[in-house]
Amino acid sequence: VLDAARALLEEGGYPDATIEAIAARSGVAKTTIYRRWPNRTALVVDLLVEMSTATVPPPAGKDPLLALRIELRQAAAVADALEGQLVGSLLGEAQHDPEVRAALLQGIFHPRREASAKVIRQAQASGALRRDVSPYVVTDLLFGPLFFRMLVRHAPPTVAFVNQVFDHVMEGLRPGK
Amino acid sequence: VLDAARALLEEGGYPDATIEAIAARSGVAKTTIYRRWPNRTALVVDLLVEMSTATVPPPAGKDPLLALRIELRQAAAVADALEGQLVGSLLGEAQHDPEVRAALLQGIFHPRREASAKVIRQAQASGALRRDVSPYVVTDLLFGPLFFRMLVRHAPPTVAFVNQVFDHVMEGLRPGK
Repeated sequence: VLDAARALLEEGGYPDATIEAIAARSGVAKTTIYRRWPNRTALVVDLLVEMSTATVPPPAGKDPLLALRIELRQAAAVADALEGQLVGSLLGEAQHDPEVRAALLQGIFHPRREASAKVIRQAQASGALRRDVSPYVVTDLLFGPLFFRMLVRHAPPTVAFVNQVFDHVMEGLRPGK
Repeated sequence: VLDAARALLEEGGYPDATIEAIAARSGVAKTTIYRRWPNRTALVVDLLVEMSTATVPPPAGKDPLLALRIELRQAAAVADALEGQLVGSLLGEAQHDPEVRAALLQGIFHPRREASAKVIRQAQASGALRRDVSPYVVTDLLFGPLFFRMLVRHAPPTVAFVNQVFDHVMEGLRPGK
């Protein structure tokens, strides 16, 4: 079912991927799909979670700052791919649909934010990052500029851009400042 | 006409402020409204420009860094007011409507970005800010985290938050680093 949804999204974009079309493409009955996902949003959020877990895995590794930089770079690398388009479409709907917002926050933004905050705490514990800053503020400093460009599109959300963002933010967060 | 639109937006939100309703409320014929604004989006963008020019004036004053901090604080102060709601609604539509995106970029984001970049160049010329950073990257570093919170709503876009953002970003952009 998720593969069928993905194929439809890649071909015709968000408006074309209705539950009807997904049922037809996957050969799975609509009632069966609705047993697992209450609505299209829930299904698309699940697909986005699956795709982004593969292309932008949660930060991991021995060096926490390197792990964060890699996560940010990988997020920028899919900003123009289907992952980025889905984030845009879903956040667009979230502006007038509280259920879409709740599904996005619960499925993607809150879990990812906790994973990043954990790594930021490791960097703070190891002395790589000043400790008097909230880890959640640090995630917003790093990811905010990328999402700003992704959603407004006043300038391209490139890997080169997030590398600059990372360097400047980290420069201001070094210990002893 | 803009006053009527504003009243409707404040009462019923974005979906209620149709050209039909605006015509009825203002007593101005629909054809007259369409002579000035090609569609509802253009009208709402004009209203947003008018409102935000009053509540978040472009940065000005002798101290460029202070002017930027004030601009950012004023933007956060209206994040939950009608201005912030309209930015959310319009950017939500922009995700699937290229004309809305173009109107927003041309009416608001590009002019404001140029105004901020000009002040950042003044700060660089006066030695208050390092010169090897693009002024446009600096605007994204400052405003990105605020818009990220405004649009995703994983955490509140408060004045206290943007004050922290400003301090950390500026710490990393001091000259001699």
